[in-house]
This record gives sequence, C-alpha cells and structure tokens, in this order.
Amino acid sequence: MSNKWVYIFSQDQTDGRTHMKDLLGGKGANLAEMTHLGLPVPPGFTITTEACTHYFKNGSAYPAELEAQLQEALTCVEREVDAGFGDEENPLLVSVRSGARVSMPGMMDTVLNLGLNDKTVEGLAKKSGNPRFAYDSYRRFIQMYSNVVLEMDHHDFESILEMKKEDKDVQRDVDLTAEDLQELLSEYKSLVLERTGKDFPQNPQDQLWGAINAVFDSWMNDRAKVYRRINNISDDWGTAVNVQAMVFGNMGESSATGVAFTRNPSNGEDEFYGEYLINAQGEDVVAGIRTPQNITKAARVAAGSDLPSMEEVMPEVFTQLDQVRVNLEKHYKDMQDIEFTVQNSKLWLLQTRGGKRTAAAAVKIAIDMCEEGILTKEEAILRVDPKMLDQLLHPSLDANAQKTLLTRGLPASPGAASGIVAFTAEQVEIDTQHGRDTILVRVETSPEDITGMHLAKGILTARGGMTSHAAVVARGMGRPCVSGAGELKIDTNNKVMKIGSHTIKEGDLLTIDGGTGEVMLGEVATVEPDLSGDFSQLMAWADDVRRMKIRTNAETKKDAEAAVRFGAEGIGLCRTEHMFFEGDRIISMREMILASDEEGRRAALAKLLPMQRGDFEGLFKVMRGLPVTVRLLDPPLHEFLPHNESEMIEVATQANISLDLVKERCHALEESNPMLGHRGCRLGISYPEIYEMQVQAVLEAAYNVEKSTGDKVVPEIMIPLVGDKRELEYLKNVVVQTADQLKDDKGVDVEYMVGTMIEVPRAALKAEEIANSAEFFSFGTNDLTQTTFGFSRDDSTTFLKKYEEENIHLQDPFMTLDQSGVGQLVEMACEKGRSVRSSIKLGVCGEHGGDPASIEFFEGVGLDYVSCSPYRVPIARLAAAQATLRRSKKNSSVAKVA
Amino acid sequence: MSNKWVYIFSQDQTDGRTHMKDLLGGKGANLAEMTHLGLPVPPGFTITTEACTHYFKNGSAYPAELEAQLQEALTCVEREVDAGFGDEENPLLVSVRSGARVSMPGMMDTVLNLGLNDKTVEGLAKKSGNPRFAYDSYRRFIQMYSNVVLEMDHHDFESILEMKKEDKDVQRDVDLTAEDLQELLSEYKSLVLERTGKDFPQNPQDQLWGAINAVFDSWMNDRAKVYRRINNISDDWGTAVNVQAMVFGNMGESSATGVAFTRNPSNGEDEFYGEYLINAQGEDVVAGIRTPQNITKAARVAAGSDLPSMEEVMPEVFTQLDQVRVNLEKHYKDMQDIEFTVQNSKLWLLQTRGGKRTAAAAVKIAIDMCEEGILTKEEAILRVDPKMLDQLLHPSLDANAQKTLLTRGLPASPGAASGIVAFTAEQVEIDTQHGRDTILVRVETSPEDITGMHLAKGILTARGGMTSHAAVVARGMGRPCVSGAGELKIDTNNKVMKIGSHTIKEGDLLTIDGGTGEVMLGEVATVEPDLSGDFSQLMAWADDVRRMKIRTNAETKKDAEAAVRFGAEGIGLCRTEHMFFEGDRIISMREMILASDEEGRRAALAKLLPMQRGDFEGLFKVMRGLPVTVRLLDPPLHEFLPHNESEMIEVATQANISLDLVKERCHALEESNPMLGHRGCRLGISYPEIYEMQVQAVLEAAYNVEKSTGDKVVPEIMIPLVGDKRELEYLKNVVVQTADQLKDDKGVDVEYMVGTMIEVPRAALKAEEIANSAEFFSFGTNDLTQTTFGFSRDDSTTFLKKYEEENIHLQDPFMTLDQSGVGQLVEMACEKGRSVRSSIKLGVCGEHGGDPASIEFFEGVGLDYVSCSPYRVPIARLAAAQATLRRSKKNSSVAKVA
Repeated sequence: MSNKWVYIFSQDQTDGRTHMKDLLGGKGANLAEMTHLGLPVPPGFTITTEACTHYFKNGSAYPAELEAQLQEALTCVEREVDAGFGDEENPLLVSVRSGARVSMPGMMDTVLNLGLNDKTVEGLAKKSGNPRFAYDSYRRFIQMYSNVVLEMDHHDFESILEMKKEDKDVQRDVDLTAEDLQELLSEYKSLVLERTGKDFPQNPQDQLWGAINAVFDSWMNDRAKVYRRINNISDDWGTAVNVQAMVFGNMGESSATGVAFTRNPSNGEDEFYGEYLINAQGEDVVAGIRTPQNITKAARVAAGSDLPSMEEVMPEVFTQLDQVRVNLEKHYKDMQDIEFTVQNSKLWLLQTRGGKRTAAAAVKIAIDMCEEGILTKEEAILRVDPKMLDQLLHPSLDANAQKTLLTRGLPASPGAASGIVAFTAEQVEIDTQHGRDTILVRVETSPEDITGMHLAKGILTARGGMTSHAAVVARGMGRPCVSGAGELKIDTNNKVMKIGSHTIKEGDLLTIDGGTGEVMLGEVATVEPDLSGDFSQLMAWADDVRRMKIRTNAETKKDAEAAVRFGAEGIGLCRTEHMFFEGDRIISMREMILASDEEGRRAALAKLLPMQRGDFEGLFKVMRGLPVTVRLLDPPLHEFLPHNESEMIEVATQANISLDLVKERCHALEESNPMLGHRGCRLGISYPEIYEMQVQAVLEAAYNVEKSTGDKVVPEIMIPLVGDKRELEYLKNVVVQTADQLKDDKGVDVEYMVGTMIEVPRAALKAEEIANSAEFFSFGTNDLTQTTFGFSRDDSTTFLKKYEEENIHLQDPFMTLDQSGVGQLVEMACEKGRSVRSSIKLGVCGEHGGDPASIEFFEGVGLDYVSCSPYRVPIARLAAAQATLRRSKKNSSVAKVA
Repeated sequence: MSNKWVYIFSQDQTDGRTHMKDLLGGKGANLAEMTHLGLPVPPGFTITTEACTHYFKNGSAYPAELEAQLQEALTCVEREVDAGFGDEENPLLVSVRSGARVSMPGMMDTVLNLGLNDKTVEGLAKKSGNPRFAYDSYRRFIQMYSNVVLEMDHHDFESILEMKKEDKDVQRDVDLTAEDLQELLSEYKSLVLERTGKDFPQNPQDQLWGAINAVFDSWMNDRAKVYRRINNISDDWGTAVNVQAMVFGNMGESSATGVAFTRNPSNGEDEFYGEYLINAQGEDVVAGIRTPQNITKAARVAAGSDLPSMEEVMPEVFTQLDQVRVNLEKHYKDMQDIEFTVQNSKLWLLQTRGGKRTAAAAVKIAIDMCEEGILTKEEAILRVDPKMLDQLLHPSLDANAQKTLLTRGLPASPGAASGIVAFTAEQVEIDTQHGRDTILVRVETSPEDITGMHLAKGILTARGGMTSHAAVVARGMGRPCVSGAGELKIDTNNKVMKIGSHTIKEGDLLTIDGGTGEVMLGEVATVEPDLSGDFSQLMAWADDVRRMKIRTNAETKKDAEAAVRFGAEGIGLCRTEHMFFEGDRIISMREMILASDEEGRRAALAKLLPMQRGDFEGLFKVMRGLPVTVRLLDPPLHEFLPHNESEMIEVATQANISLDLVKERCHALEESNPMLGHRGCRLGISYPEIYEMQVQAVLEAAYNVEKSTGDKVVPEIMIPLVGDKRELEYLKNVVVQTADQLKDDKGVDVEYMVGTMIEVPRAALKAEEIANSAEFFSFGTNDLTQTTFGFSRDDSTTFLKKYEEENIHLQDPFMTLDQSGVGQLVEMACEKGRSVRSSIKLGVCGEHGGDPASIEFFEGVGLDYVSCSPYRVPIARLAAAQATLRRSKKNSSVAKVA
C-alpha cells in the first residue's frame, strides 16, 4: 500500500489510467483515461479504494497524508476551472461520487453541487446570471446532502416541495420561481435543524469531508452488501471517492444531461442509443421521473415520439458526441455506457464504462466488432459472458398463441416470463420459497428491491425509461423486464392494480415480453428460440478453440435431442432411475422392491428389462454413435415406494401381496439419512440382479442400434457412489460376467467401458486404487460437495440464508464449485487416477459442469469433458473455449517469464 | 515364492524355525522350533501356506514339485520312526492337521491315524500287541476321515457306536472289545459305501492326498471365513498342512494325552496348569466329552477332585514335562499352551504356541516375567493386548448382592454377565439385533457357534473343561464363561432347561460369574473392579513410556470420576447437549426451541444458564485443573422435541403455546438428512444466543471453581462441525465478545482457548485457513468417517452386512480408523494446521480414540492426546505406550539403516 491516496485528473496532470480500476474504482480510472485521451472531462480527483480500506480497518479514521493531498488536488481543480472552493464571489462546486472496482448501479450514494451555502449561492446566482438556477441547485444540494450524509428521509423534502407546488399552484418543479425556491430553501433548512438539532453545514470543507465519510460508509450499507453478495464482490475491495468540478445540465435550454450506449444494448445494433433531458441534472434521467427524449432522430422516429431528439435540437453537440462514441469504442474495444452533460452548449463527459447489454446484444456486438476489425476472434469469444447465453436459449412467446394484451411498456430487457403478480420484493421472496414463479410489479424499482428482482421471473414497472434502475438491473441479471408501462395504476397498499378495465390482484397470473414490451393476462404459450446467425457463429468460433468436450445430462429422447441441437457431444450422465417412474414401470419397480427374495426380484426385473432396453435404444439412436455414460441405479429404493395408504393398497393388489407386508417393507426401507444410506453401488452389491438387468439392457440396446444404424455404440457403464476399490472390483465383475454371458448365450458382442463416479471424499482420497478398475472417472460434484461440506442440499437452505446474511459464504457451493475445498479433492483424484492409468477418461457430471467459473477450474485440472443439462450446453461450449484461451494465455506468459 | 513347498522337522533335518510362521503356519513353525531345541517331537513335515495359496489360485491344483518333495519327506519320516507308510507289517501312521499363521482354535479339521486300512490295521495289532487298540484306532480314523474328507455326518457314526454299546450292554467306549470293534468297523465301512457309493479308501497315498485336500478346502469353509472376518485375518494367508508321525495316548494305562498352559491362563499364577486323560487321544480332551484330570497334585487338591493327577500317576514323565515347561517359557519369553502325548511312558510334544489368557493373567504374567528377568520392562508393556484390559475394568458381582444360586460350573473365563437365555447362536443374533443382552446356553459349543458367542454377553455350557472349545474361545474374546455346569438339563428343541427344581425358559434372565463359576437366577448387582496391584504397576510403566496424553469423553460427574480413577488426564469431549435432557432442563430447552423470536429464546436460555453452570462447576471440580474441552451445542434441535402427540400436548401446556404451533414447529424442524443438516456451528450461527449462554456458563463455572478450589481452570471451548474459516471466525467472535462482556460486566476474568472439531472433509482440506482462528483441533473421527465414506452409521448396517459376506470391507471403519482414507485427511489437517500455528494442540475425540490400532496411527501423526470413553482410558494408556515404543523402535532401526 503506497502513501499516495489522491489521484488527480485534469488537463495539467492526470495520475491515473484505465487499468488502475482496483485502486481508483471503475469510474475514477475511466475519468482519468478519458482526460488522458483529451476528451472534455470536468477536472477532479479520486480518493483511492485503499483509503477506504484504511478507513474501515482503522475505526473510520483517514490516513494521515490524506488531508494535505486532498487540499493540493482541490487547489489544482480550482486553478483549472478558475473558481474557489467556498469563494463567495466565484464558488467552485463539486460532485462527490462513489466508484468501486466494478459498476454497482444505484447502489452507492452521490452528492451534487457541494460547496454551496447561503453565501456562495448568491455568488453562483450572480456569476451565472440565473438566480433561479442557483437556488434550485442549492435546494437539490440540501436535499441530497441531508439524505445521504445526514441520513434524513428524502420523502420529507419531496413533500415540502409538493406542498410548495400546490401552494403556488404549479405542476412542474421548473415552474417554481427563484423566490419560491428561496422560501423552499428556508423551509428545507428548518427541517434539517428540527430533525438533526443542528444547522445545515455552511462550511464547504465540512460538507466535503461529510460527503466523503458518507460515501465510504455507504460501502457497508445493507443494499451494497446485498448487491455484493449476489454478485460475489468482496467486502474488502472498498470504494473510491470521486470529487469533480460540477458542470450543469440545468442552466437553461442550451443545457442538457443524458446517458447513452455506443450501440443498442438491447439487440446489439450499431446505432447510437441514448436518452437526454434538456435543462436537467443527471439524476433526473436515471431516476425515471421525467420521460427522457431520444438522442438520435432515427430513434425518435422509430419510437413515434414527438419530443425532439438531441440530433435535431443540438446538432453540433450531437456531432461532437457521436465522434466521442466512435473514439471510445475503438479505444476501449467495447461498447460503452456514457454519461454526459451539456452546459451552455458545451459538452462534458462525466463517465464511461463497459455497457451492460442483453445476451443477444453481447453476441452481436462481439461478432460485429470482430468483423469491423476492432476485436480479434479470440477477443470476441472472451467478450461474451457465457452465463448470459441462457437468455437466448429459453423460449419466447408463441406468436400464434392466444393472448389478452393488457398494455404495452418499454422493451427494457428481453425474454418472456409468466408468473403471479407480487407487489413487493418481500412478497417475491415468500412466493419463491413456496416454489411459485412471480412477476415483480412496481411503480419504479429502487436498490431496496434488488433481492426481489433477483428472485422474480420478470419485472414490470409503471414508470422509468430504458435506462431506469429497473431496466439496467434487469438486463444485467438477464431478467425479462417491461418498464414505463404508464397505464398501470398500482395500489401497493391494497395489493391491486388496474390496467384499463382489468383489475389484477396480487397472486393473479401475468405474462410479460421484455422483447416487445407487451403485458398480457394469464400464462401465454411460448416457442423455442432461434439459434442461428450470430449465435451459431460465436458457437462455431468457440468450438474451434476449446479443448474440452461438452456432454449433456439426459435420460429422455426429448432432452437428448434438445442437447444435440445445442451442440452436445455425448451424454455424460444418463440417470437410469428416472426411467423407472413412468407408467407401468413404477409398478414393476415396486414389485421388485417388495419381493421377498432374489427369485421374486428377478421376475419383476424381467418385466423391466425390455422397457429399459427400449429407452437405451432410443437414446443411442439420438446420439448417433456419440459416447453415452449410463449410471446404474443410484437412489435409495424407498424413493420408488408408495407414500400413502391408498398407494400402498394399490401396490399390494398389483403385486398380490398383503398390505401389511407392503407397510412392513416400506418401513424397513426408511432411513435416518437417505443421502448417506443404502444407495448407489451399495444397492448393486446388495442386489446384483438389478445391475445385471441394467447392464443387459444397455448392451443389448447398443448391439441392436449398432446393427440397425451402423453407428458404432460404445456404452460407458458407470458405477455410482464408490468409496473403496473393492466395491468397484465387485461390481465391475458383475458387469463383465453379465457381458460375457450375453456374448456366450446370445452373441451380443459389444464394446463397452466400465468406470465410476467420484462423489464421496474417500473415492478421491483413494483414487489411485480405484483407477485400477476404472476406465473413467466422472466427478459427481453435487454429492461430493454435500459430503465434503457435510451438509445436504435439501437441508442447507434453512441455515445458509443466515450464512448469507452474516457474509459467511460468498458463494453457493452447489452453483459454483468450491475450488479450494471440493476442488482439492477433484484435483487429487485426477492426479492419482492418471498416475496409475494415464489414459483414464475424466469428466464431470454434477451441475457444476454448466457453470463457467467451474468450467475454468475443470480446464485447469485437465478434464476431458464436462456434462451439463441441455440448456447449459451452449454456455459450457463458450465457457470451455474461454477457459482454453485464458489457460494458453497464462501458459504463454509463464513461458515468457521462464 | 520359492519352489520349496515341503519343510521337514526331524532329528536328522529340520528346515523351519519359529519365525517362519507366515510360511509354515504357527503350528508347523513351532514344531520345527521344538525339534530344533531337541525336545521330543514326533517327526513330520509341513506343506507350506504358499502351496495353499497356489492351490486356490490354480483351481485346486497343486504345484508341480509338491508330489516329489512330499514323498521325499515321507521317506525321511519312515526312516526315523522305522516304519513304512502302507507297510502291512509295520505301518507308519500319520496325523494330518491344518496350521495357519495365527491360531484359529477349532476352526480347521484334523485327521488322525491316517495310513490304516484293512491290512495295516492287522500289522498295527500285531506290532502293538494290542488288537483292541488297533481296531479302535481304525474306527476313529474311519469316523474322522469320513467326516472331514468325505463330508459325512459324524453323528451317523456316533449313533452306530451308541447302538453297539447298547447292544453289548456296556457304558463306555473302552468297554467294547476288539471283536465288538471289528463288527463296528464293518458297519462303519458299509455306511461309507452306502452314503458315498464308494468303498472307504484303502490306499494310504489316496488317504493322504484326500486329507491334504480337505485341510486346504477347510480354509474356505464358512466357519473359517466367519472366524477370519471377526478377527481381521486375510483370506489370502492360506493354511499350512502338518503331516506328522502318530504317537498314541490310547495305547493303555501307561499312555495318556493332555494339554497344558505353562502358567495359569485364568489368573496368571506361575503354576503348571493343565489337564490330561489316560488312555485317550488328543481330541478327547478338547472335545470336552470325558472330564479330564489335573496335571499337578496341587491343582487336584484345590479342585477337590478324586481323579489322580499326572504328577501322582506318572511322576517321571511329569518331571520331564515340567522341565519342558520351564525351557519353553524361557525360549519363547511367553506363556505357552502345549499339547502332549505319552505313549507307553514316553513323552511326546505335539504343539506349543503362545497361550490365550485372560486380561488379568496377561497383566500378571507380563509383570512377573519382567520381575523374573525373562522380559524387559518395554517387552512387558508390549506383551499385553490393550483391548483385553476391558475385561478388567467392568464390574464384577457385588458380593453383598442378593443372589439365587442355581448351580456352579467351571470358572472358564472371568467377568460377570447378565442377560436373557438364548439356546442357539441364531437366537443370540436375533436378540442382539433387538438390543437385548443374552447369555448363550449350550450343551457344548462348537465352531458353528462362533458368531453367537461373539455377540452374547456370556456363555454357559453343560459340558467341557477349562480347555474346552467354549472356554478357550470365550477367554480369547474376553467373554465371561462358565463351562461344564453338569447340572444343566438342556432341551434345545423345546427351548427350556432345568437346573434342579428350577425351569428356565428362553428369554428368562440369568447371571453368570466366569470368575467363580456361579450361575444365578435373574440379574444380580455388580461392583466396580479393583485396579490396584499388577494392573496399576503395568499402567505406571506405560505412563512412563507414552508420549500422548489420554483424555476422556465425559459430561457427567460420575463418568468424569470414573475416568479420573482410570487415569484420564483431562476431558477431551464434553457434549453439552447431553446436559439438556435431564428433568426440568428438557422443558426449558423445548421452550427455547419453540420460541418464535430471539427474545423468547433468551428467556428460556436464562433458565438453562444456572443449570449448565452448575454442571460445569461439577466437572471442573472433579477434573481439578486438568484440561476440559467443552463442545458447544451440536445436534439438530428436533432431537430435543417431543415425538408424539401426548408429549406435544405436555410441551404446549408448559410453554403456554398452542398445540398447533408445537406441531408446526416440530414439522418445520424435520430434516431429510439430519446428519447433514442444521446442527453444529450452523446452529450457533443461526442462534448465537445459545452459544453465548453456554460460553457464559463455562466461563462463570471456571471462575467460581478457580476461586473456591485454587485450581487454575483453562476451559477449551470447542466449535463443532466447522467446514470453513468464516464459520469459526464468526463464532469465535461470539465467544470472545461474550467473554469480554463477562469480564467488563461481572469481573469474570478467565483464561480460555477456542478451537474446533475437524469432522467434515472440508475442514481437513482447509485446515491451514481454519487454524488461523483455532487454538486447537479435535478430530471428530466418527463424523469424519461418515462424511468421508458418505454413509451414516445408522443406515450403514443394512448394507455393510452384505459387504462383510462379500468380503468387501475387512474392517468396520467406525471401530478402527480407516487409516488410508480418513487417515489421509487427519494427517493433512495436522500438517496444514501446524504449518500456520506450530503450537496448535491436536487431539481426537471420536470413538477411535480408544482403539489401539487407531491410537498407533495417531501417535504416528503426532497428536497431543486421544480422548475416549472412561472405560477405555486404561486401554488407551497402554496402547499409547506401545505405540511410542514401536515408533521409537522403528525410528531407531531407520536410524541404523541411515
């Protein structure tokens, strides 16, 4: 940690650059970078994240050197804008903003117009020649500062403002005169005195330190913590503070403020995409209170808006901005999200950052930028977050489906979603806990709603534009969102809303289409997504690059077909037990379980054999010679048994045995910890005849399909839950004997492999012994995570919620592999397995097989393939390609060092 | 593997020595050793265990060289005894016996008098001048051979014999004349022809190979497999076959046969202890059919027997045998169990081996032999099997207790036991499964009863001496046994027995005292054992030697007192939850659990606080400043909840809440896998107020006891089930804050430590992180075994039985640590823990802490202590001393090599 706590950005001196995000935060680093590029950025300085860390480690005390460095930087800013901080004639005003390493939209607090007091406001009035502007700025400052720094409720100020407007009989804020605002200021200050017991601070230095304190403290507020938890951001990073000379978009009709994306963040089209407001400050746009205007004329026309575009109103500034757009994209090699202000026809840039975008946009932009020569193919592959692809794979609304259109809002985040209406984030949480899909419906969302937005299937707001809080956050999360649906009359208190003649109560079903902005009554049918075009291009590039194969977990023909369509190169996990639940099968299965001896079990198994064989034939046909790993029966038998008396009576009748026997057997099969009970290979050892039947079904199916299609089928037979070599030796022998007998008796001569799941810690610890009998290992990371942590997925939700609250686990180990714990076992098993069998095939079939971070880990330990659910196959393809690229980059930089 | 399959022992040539037990088996190696020492051993040869292994690996085929080597050895024997195998005038007769590496009493089959046929029997008659002896020998041979080799039921022969005696109106076998026996022989041979379809084999070579086959095959019979499984003997070891010239103890009144221990195997006294029978063959003694006579006069007098002792009847032979006894003990440095035969006044030794003994005898012999200069102190420590000490620690009958003496048998294996009568081994198994203690009551036991004997609490037989099957096996297992209680009239078919006027049915309660031979009605009160004298001497020697400390697992004053008496040096595990079940506590505990909020929980916890504090005060007082590790609440809360409606009503009334709420809460706390659920530190994180109360109770108790006694108390506070450093950090903070507050508020200033259990794999994998916050690790090897294997102890019994049958697991990992699997994690955690905190205190508190093999492992990884149940403390003390000795021996031999 250095002793430099303050970094200046100005025309004279710029200390930072874009790569210093960890130290300066994203905003600070990019302000420095833009200044460096010669773009018009109001001068300012950044207090580093290290100062924040120091602050929290030292009981809210600042580093000793900070004060002097800050004053020096402030002097530099004063010099450049030719104004004095606290100067009553010519006051310098600053904004104070947070800026963490990664963008945390709406999560941190901002203070504008700092430096105003009862005296400097008069100086500003004189200097600007616009008293109304000066008083309005002071009003905003008091309101913001009181809220953020003095922790007062901003609604209290809003209601004074509302009363004032009523009192003066005006509709809009801007209709209040300078005198009105002066009255308001006095009422504001009275409120501050009343609530805090102190006068509103008049000393600009006190104001500044108070704001810095507040920014730092806001790093630890609950909204920030929640956001970080959801996004896996460490509390230790801290935030920087950016202090910057104010520029004003609210100085009149030749002033404006706006936000823009350098391309369309919704579909990726190469068009300038943004909104602006004349005579407004930045917060007015994102807050979604006034409906903003388009930047380009084309967009205005497309939207059918009669509010003039910036291109039309301020053509020169627009041309300048459009050039900035091109330059920034070339410089950053990425689509940018920029904030700007126009003060008296002069353009100022206040922020640039990588723009959040939909998956479709991300793919299109990556492909386009590659074609435009901005990105290499490898860079294009690395540019798309694999997790986002999920958005492209899920169904959209069926154009032919019957639908009752209620209203139309803005298409803020694409994708269709159905669910019951919930009017609060809390209600979403409750419904989710009960397994119900929800649509969160709000007038406008705020950071307090983050958790609920994360859990909801879709978001619908009555107010706010395409860049409102709801829209930005929803796109980032990949949640469908319709924003600004102004026809909604929401009565949150009574949990009801009206849309035209319809009344919708909480709990009623609703469907939204975030791609069109439509809001529909009830649940509407959907269609499969289109995977051609840019998507398939990106996938093809990824396939060229990646080392690992991608398989899928599937046991039905339908799933297998979907997976093949998504590019699966085999089945990594076919859970045979899923085949036992359909129709007649469960009857025979129960007969088998209830049989009192081996003979009885064999009779029931004989009925199951042709069904299993048929299933496997279907799968093998779909997979056309691609490898298929079949896991033999795994779950405890009682999962198949009837759970209530009437089912038991049915079973007793079918199996022609007494009800008492059924009850006794069901009771005997109960376990205190089924996860750790009589399942997996333990079943196979107790009842080898079950595995014999399954092996026979697999091999006969392979033989039949090979004969009828000519595709060579080499099934991979997988023994689950092995923890000791003797278990595998015993069951491998059962498999081999069954195969040999099939060959001898029926001439069924099929090549096959025998391997095992590695899913209990002991299997990893003893992998060198187990590998002697295993031709492949498949890591069952779900169970391996459960046993390594010692908690079951089912039961852990009760306590993991508290863990999250207390920040004890940053990540759900069932979503993303616990690399340093469970991963140690995976790595150990790979090494040990290869040490005795260099050719051993290694893969993973837990849910981590579809998680990009985990895939990168699996690339690192050199697995041959990952297997995941069909809808995750494209994600895995891209993630595997990225992992290969990053690994070779790392290796080549290691090679350079060596 | 060499090509030498046959090892001769004879005066001319002796190929083997005692250290070659793996190759020659115990019996063969010791026969060679005795021959080498110049003791009178009939010549013979041993077919190696490698031949047996070869036999099983090659489909029951012998090595090519065996035949020639065997014939050569046979010629050598013929030369030495001056007789020919199959010679019709002067036949050589041989015994064929099995002999594995370790003694497996009664498990293997033996054939005597082999070489007799219709012709050689006449030669034997002439040569011995005793036709009756010759025919009797042939009769015994046919019976034994037909049973062992031809697999006929020996009862069929017995009934022919019984009918013959009835027919001839005689009582005893010996009263049958030579002519009677000739008739019997012809009937025996007819039976063989009838049952097998073939004549009884007349060619001695055929007989010999048939017997060798049978010995080898018997290695794989079910009894042998069961014995090996119980005793952890590998199937791969194989058995040797000993072929030895016959000597006859049944050649008349100057002949005899007997077995003896060089010291009293029951109490360890230095007295010659054995039994013999005049005019008998060896099997007659051990079979327990005739009641044998004492060897020494002193023993006869003590027993009040009127059958003359060997010392009185054959004084010269006795003197010779007594000298052999002294020589063997000096040579083997151990108490020996010998078999001998006197043929026409000449002594022959047939076997010597380390004698099985009771724990008391083992301790006394080790101490005495050290004092006699035979053993060093270290050798004496290593001589006693720590597991046996268990026998010395359990209560014996209270001399003052009311008891109804039913009868008195022989004091065959010490210790008192009560249980319900079971007349078959199967019934013992059934009762045991239902949790009932049993006394196995048999006329005489046989190897088929092994499993039942293992499960029974005590064994009572109507027939057989101190060296009968029942007595030898029971002593080996440490089961109390009363043998030869001749008054018992057992009707196994009707499951009832009569003793005098009493009728005892299966299921009735009985008590036996294996130390006195008493059999008593019902259950009789017991007293604590005496731990002074030899026992305390041995323990003192062990304490001098051992490096690891021994602690105990205890939570009650009573247990802690017992443990301290047994030498515990601290408490390694105090399970605080056990304190919550007594009387009023469970009410407050349930109130706490059912409380709807923290306030309610705190109110209930306030009631529990003084009780917990009182418990800890009691413990700390008993432990007088020794370290005490207190584990905070661990089990899932639903364990404390009512299980049925009437209990629920009671709770609802007590807690003044609705029954519905009680039901709802109980239901909510149900888990699908409680082992992997909301327990351990997860509870502490959800409800920190519980841990706060417990910490307060511990610290206040420590403070109070320190004040009142002056003993410094440094409690070790242990957080259970930690898998991640953040869990420990969070809860350590709770502990520290509670402690700080107690100090500030009440001046309770107590030194304490905070540490954790290592009981899930992840804790071991991440031990270097966890050790940053842990001052000690205690390995909870029970849970660590469950999670590492992925099976719960409760549920695993259902499938582990099949595993045993299929030989998949040799050992129960809950009894003895799975060193190569779970042990890897223990070792890893020790290394990682020490790497960041070299002073970290390491211990184990799972049940493995009392298992000698596991203790040796823990010594190897350098734990500071082991903790076990109070009754295992002496076992652990001795085992730890042995581990230290073996380790320093290994280290010094490594040092020599280097």
